[in-house]
Parts: sequence; structure tokens; C-alpha cells
Amino acid sequence: MASSKPSIPKGTRDFGPHQTARRNYIINIIKSSFIKYGFSQIETPSMENLTTLMGKYGDEGDQLLFKIVNSGDYLSNASEDDFNKGSKQLLNKISEKGLRYDLTVPFARFVVQHRNDITFPFKRFQIQPVWRADRPQKGRYREFYQCDADIIGTDSIWNEANLTLLIHDVFNGLKYKNFTLKINHRDILDGLSDYVGLAEKMIPFCVAIDKLDKIGEEKVREELKELGADSSKLDKLFSLFSSEESNEKKISILSEFLSGSKGIDELKQYFDFLKKANTYKLKIELDLGLARGLTYYTGMIFEVSADDVKIGSICGGGRYDNLTGVFGLEGISGVGISFGLDRIFDVLEEKNLFPQALDKNFEVIILHFDDDSFNHGVELLLEMRTKGIKCEIYPDQSKIKKQINYANKLEAPFSLIIGSDEIQSKKYALKNMVSGEQKTLTIEEIIKVLQKN
Amino acid sequence: MASSKPSIPKGTRDFGPHQTARRNYIINIIKSSFIKYGFSQIETPSMENLTTLMGKYGDEGDQLLFKIVNSGDYLSNASEDDFNKGSKQLLNKISEKGLRYDLTVPFARFVVQHRNDITFPFKRFQIQPVWRADRPQKGRYREFYQCDADIIGTDSIWNEANLTLLIHDVFNGLKYKNFTLKINHRDILDGLSDYVGLAEKMIPFCVAIDKLDKIGEEKVREELKELGADSSKLDKLFSLFSSEESNEKKISILSEFLSGSKGIDELKQYFDFLKKANTYKLKIELDLGLARGLTYYTGMIFEVSADDVKIGSICGGGRYDNLTGVFGLEGISGVGISFGLDRIFDVLEEKNLFPQALDKNFEVIILHFDDDSFNHGVELLLEMRTKGIKCEIYPDQSKIKKQINYANKLEAPFSLIIGSDEIQSKKYALKNMVSGEQKTLTIEEIIKVLQKN
Repeated sequence: MASSKPSIPKGTRDFGPHQTARRNYIINIIKSSFIKYGFSQIETPSMENLTTLMGKYGDEGDQLLFKIVNSGDYLSNASEDDFNKGSKQLLNKISEKGLRYDLTVPFARFVVQHRNDITFPFKRFQIQPVWRADRPQKGRYREFYQCDADIIGTDSIWNEANLTLLIHDVFNGLKYKNFTLKINHRDILDGLSDYVGLAEKMIPFCVAIDKLDKIGEEKVREELKELGADSSKLDKLFSLFSSEESNEKKISILSEFLSGSKGIDELKQYFDFLKKANTYKLKIELDLGLARGLTYYTGMIFEVSADDVKIGSICGGGRYDNLTGVFGLEGISGVGISFGLDRIFDVLEEKNLFPQALDKNFEVIILHFDDDSFNHGVELLLEMRTKGIKCEIYPDQSKIKKQINYANKLEAPFSLIIGSDEIQSKKYALKNMVSGEQKTLTIEEIIKVLQKN
Repeated sequence: MASSKPSIPKGTRDFGPHQTARRNYIINIIKSSFIKYGFSQIETPSMENLTTLMGKYGDEGDQLLFKIVNSGDYLSNASEDDFNKGSKQLLNKISEKGLRYDLTVPFARFVVQHRNDITFPFKRFQIQPVWRADRPQKGRYREFYQCDADIIGTDSIWNEANLTLLIHDVFNGLKYKNFTLKINHRDILDGLSDYVGLAEKMIPFCVAIDKLDKIGEEKVREELKELGADSSKLDKLFSLFSSEESNEKKISILSEFLSGSKGIDELKQYFDFLKKANTYKLKIELDLGLARGLTYYTGMIFEVSADDVKIGSICGGGRYDNLTGVFGLEGISGVGISFGLDRIFDVLEEKNLFPQALDKNFEVIILHFDDDSFNHGVELLLEMRTKGIKCEIYPDQSKIKKQINYANKLEAPFSLIIGSDEIQSKKYALKNMVSGEQKTLTIEEIIKVLQKN
């Protein structure tokens, strides 16, 4: 075994106790909201067959899949000809499995594979890592967690409303208030592209308006004109995009020229459901220029942005009408959302919203001078533990100064020093390591102080 | 996107809501014990550099690592010569990363990489999946979870004692009583192999006695003789292995002919510490024939077996003196244990020890006849939710029979049916789906019933 200088693959991360505690804080809040709203957790394998994954994320996605070399003599099916034809040809012969790229395709595969065991409508959540061989950069990792909740096998817009409340519940739980939930509807985007004469160019229309925030109205206008949009209707279009009217008013304006739109009906239903919920101050904005994931979503779409942190969307989702069709099960409609753990982490960190001391897992540390006091300390530790107090003892025979340093580095709330006098008197100096205050107390008194704390 | 028949790679598993809830039950109990005993959680990446992993698990282990094809044109560094030299040669050119094989080597790598940020003694726990390209069979998977707790940077035997209490705390939490914690010490095995004249053949000696349970005393005796053991001392040896004496008695017998053994001193210390702990009925057996992981452990070794289920060890561990040496950091002693989630799962399932209804995440489901009653139902749901009651509503307009079927399939504890009469009277039929009992109540009364429940 040669000694090697340790490092980890680029784009991956180690999480120490402090970060892991903070990540768990977020995951636990998301998870408890998922459960509160009736979703059941499932887990799927990290690796899927490449036949399951390939072709589901476009050509670029196929390239970003991490592929696993077949076990054993993986070249046994490969010829020199395969090798000479290059990476792509050989890959088919040496790799059958890949790491999952998201939680959606594995979920679709799960539903089709287990459809006889599933009771529909099925509400599932899944919190697992995904892997993408993307070029690593700030905020973009090759391994990251997704936190997804989906309901499938139901058309009701109540589900969209319920997911909206769930989103509010999560950010309320995280004590982050300055977010906006932007919504839109595929049908309305269809109607608007039709209105400006681009009915046949719905996707390029959406790609163009999706850039509004980045390149501004003038340039998007030009792009739409190049696509062949009716110039006389663009003023109206952009007044809708930039409208600061209420959601209700926007819907009523839309109704005037997109009559009979299923999208408008569904948005009305959606807001009607939400009117019944006055638990949260809802922060919903009907953003008619929102056009995310258009090749995928078929109904309402959601996106949550942070108002006061420069970062992409921190949660997103929408309705899809045919998630499982690609695996041979047609006509299953669903709606889902996904929370981005890493971005939410960055938001909470920047806004200083993490509770203090998430990774502090003991209340008092026992320090000692010799074998006898160590043994006595173990007895006190065991007694405190039975009373529910999380207690540590410095495990080795070291100079007291080293032990105090250790207690300070670990930010111990209290320390308790034992020497021969203390063993005799059965009274111990309990020191508040923050205030420096020190009291000499019996173990029963110490337990009371710590229990109060 | 072509339709494909969905499946998952062999040796991997999907976990539906029922299984995931049961797995979480175990993980949560292990995790809360880890935290209670002062361990902090860390997470490391699923993939490590092959330079980190290779050579750490023996030749067989190297073969069982899942290797990941480099991104992009992975063949760019490979020549036809590499290809013709075969799988092993080519692999070096096309793969730099692998999936972690256990949590121990990544932990060692973590400690060395972050040694300047770590306060020693460092108590960490880690609960993550690991991957092995083993031949799948009953109870052996290619992806499975390990739950590890280790303390490093301390020599004190108190750590072994504390881990022993932790093991008891976990199985106590899981309500599984029929386990035995077997312990032994590397030094004693050294002493015994010396005693029978096999001082130079310590490893084959251990390999032989490790088979006692499987092939019986006679065959192990033969093997030892073939190794060159002093026949006159084998009776004494086997009487020790099969001894039903108390742990104290065994130690005193050992002391007679292994004088000055560090192992005996440490075992004495260990039992002295544990004498102070009377919280649990300790189930510890000094098993002088226990010889697990000998190439790795250097001090005490642990193994937990289930007394009433035919299954391998459900927890194991020990002390190692040089975990991080392979990464260039010498002289860091540690001791750790690992719980096997899958085997513990099987034990709890076989002994019927899982609590009921772990995956039931609502208390009442609202059923309805039409749009009006659905809307009314949503109002009741929102009201109950603010009172902390987990409530579902059947989301679509379907025949009431279909809705009742759904409620039954999901094993809803209660259902509440709403029609026009109920909207008028504001009294609703709350049905206990288990007993069949039905009561007509106001929503306030319903909330009281469900809160009591």
C-alpha cells in the first residue's frame, strides 16, 4: 500500500460536521413538510441501466451521464473495430449502467415497473443525490441532492394548490420569507405564441421570452420579429409580461383575447382553492413570461426565486401529462416540485438564517487529572446520561491545559473538572464556557442546571 | 425516445414507501444513538479517485470496485496497444474514479485531507451507501448502506467501553434483545498462536480458528497441526474456545499463561468501565476464537450476532492503530463500529419487531360526491391541517365506490364523507375504517376525536 496524497474528484465535496448539520437541518424541514402533506418516501438505486437513462435528457444529457465500466473482463464483448470507431461505439460494449441524472426518470421507471403494486393517485417523495458530468463551477457540482415530491394519476388542480401550500410550508419552516413563487401555464404560452402569429413556433417563442430577464425587452422583441411575429401585437404581449397588475387582473385581461383557454380555467380554479387557505401569506406571482422546461411540462409551471439573494431558482416544478409514456405506460398525468438543496443552503447562509449550534451534540465535558478522577468522571458521565444529558469525557490522560483547549475548540457549553478534592467532597466546579462563570455543585445540582439549560 | 421495458441493474433494489419507512426507522434509531453518544455526522462523495481506493481492499477488492468511465472522449489517452493489452491496461487510461467500497477508506482520506480543521479526538459517524461489484445473492447487494461510528486520535479503552454501551443503546432502541456482543483482542490471538507454537503463522492460525463455527473443532485441529502447531497444547486451546466460563474467569485463566499481555490489561480495564454502567443488561461474551478482520484491527475486536435468527454478524468493529498511515498520516489510533442496515432489517422483519403503520402518513381521508362537496372538503382539510391533523382528500371527481376503495387500499384510519346534506348541516360522518364504527359530528368534534387518536 503506497502512500498517496489524498484528494477528491473535482466537482464533488466533503461535508464536515458543521456543513452536514446544516444540510440535515434543511433536509429535515423539507422532509417533514413532504410527510405533513401526505407524500411517502421511496428510494431508487444510484445506478440505472443505460437503456433507462439514455435519450431522456437530450444529446447533451446523454453526454453528462456518468457511465460505469462493466464488471470483470469488460472488454470481452469489444472488438478492435469497436475501439477504432471511437469512444461512443466502444461505450456500448463496455458500459451498461450509469449513475442517475435526476430523480424524475428513475421515478417514472419505478412507477411503470411497480405499477401493479401502486395505488393511484400516488404521492411520493424522494431525497437522494444525483450525478452530472457537468463542467464544475461555483454553485454547480457533479454530485448534488434533489428533493422531489410528485403526485401522479390525478388531473385535479387541487394538487397544484396543495403543492403551492407545501412550498410555503417549507420556506416558512426555514424562516425564509423573501421568496416569490412565480407561476404560469403552458396553455397560456401556447395562446400567446398563437396570438402573435407564432403558433407553429411555440418552442422558439418560449426560448426567446425566457431570456427577458437576461437580455431585456428590446432584444427579445427583435428575436420574435425574426421568428415572424406580428409586430402590431408585440406591444400588448410585452405589456402583459411587464404587468404589475394583480394576478386576478392579469387573468381577466388574458380572458379577453385567449377565450376558452384551459389554462385560464385552471388558473382560476387554482386561485379559488388558495383563497380558502389563509394560513400563509401567499407570495404568488402569475408571471406570463415564465417558460421553464417547456418540452416537458404540459400544464401549470412553478418557479421559486429568492428576492434578496442573487441565485437561480431554488425550487421548481410543474404538471406533465405523460411522464411514464417513454416506459410504455401512457396517460398518467402528474405534477411535481423539486427543491434545490445547495441553493437553499447558500440562501440561508447568506441571510444568516441557520439556527446556532446545530452541530453541538453535547452539553458538558468532563476534564480530569489522573486515573482516579477519570474513573470518577466516567461514573458521573453515566449518571448524567441516564438523566438525558449529553455528556463527554476527555478520553485520554493529558495535561489539563490540553483538555481545556479541546473543550474550547469544540465550543463545549459547560466543563466540569475533577481532581482528588472533588472526589472527596463530591462537589464539582461546573464552568459555563461562554460566560466563564463557575459554580461548585453536587452532581444532582449540576444535572438540574444542565436540564434547565 | 423509444419505449423500453423498465428494470434495474442486478444486485440493486427499489424501496417503496413501506420498505423505506422501515429502513428509516432503523437508520433514525442508529443515528440518534450516534448523536446521543457524541458522534458528529459527516458525508463524503460517492465517487473517490481510484488512487484513493485501489490497493486498500486487496486484489479481490480492487476487482469489486465499480469504476466510472472518464467524461468526454474517454479514449483520447488510450492507444490501440492499451486496448490489445486487455481490460486492466486499458482501464488505467479510461477511468480515474470509482464508487466508494466502504466508509472507512473515505473516512481515512477525509481525516488526512482535513487534518488541520479537525479537533482530535474526533468522533464521527457516517451513514451512506457503498457499492461492490460482488456476485449478487440472497442478502448480498451491489448497493447497500453502512452506518459507521469511529473515534480517532485516542488510545483510551474507555472508547471501547462507550461503543459497547452505544451498541446496547441501538439494539435497545430497536427493541431487539436476543443479540450477543462477542469480543476478543488481537493481542490475545497473538498470544494464543504463540502458545501453540505458531507465532510466525498468526494469520493462518486466525483463518483456521475463524472456521470453528463452520467446520467444527476436529477439522480446525487438523488444520492447526498441518500448520505445525504443538499438539500437546491444542487441548488447552480448544478448551478456551469452547469455555462457558464467565468473562472474568476466562481472563483469569488466560492470565496464567499469557502474562504481561497488553490485551489482558485492556480487557480488564474494559470490563471495569462497564461495571460502572448498570443502565443496560450487558450481553457481552469474551469469545477467544473470534478472529475478524485481523489484517486490519490491532486491538479489541467486536462482533454482534443475532441469537435467534440465522444471519451473519449484524454489527462489527474494532481498534486499528494506523488507519490513516496509507495516506501519509502516521500514528493515529482509532476504534470504530459499523451496523449492517440490511441484516438488521431482516432480523427485525423475521422477529416482527417493526412498529405498525410506520408508513401511514395521514389520519383521515375526505371523500365527496361533487364539485361543491369537494370544495367544502378542501376547506375542512385546511382547517384540520392548521390543527396539526394529517388529512387527505381524494383529489379527483370519481364515483364514491372508487374513492372508498382507494381509502381502503391506503389503509386510511378514518374517512369522512361529504355530500350536500353534510354541507347544509355542517355535520359529517366520520368512519373508523378499522372498526367500521361511524359517528356524525361537527368538524370541531372530529378534530377532538382525531387529536385524541
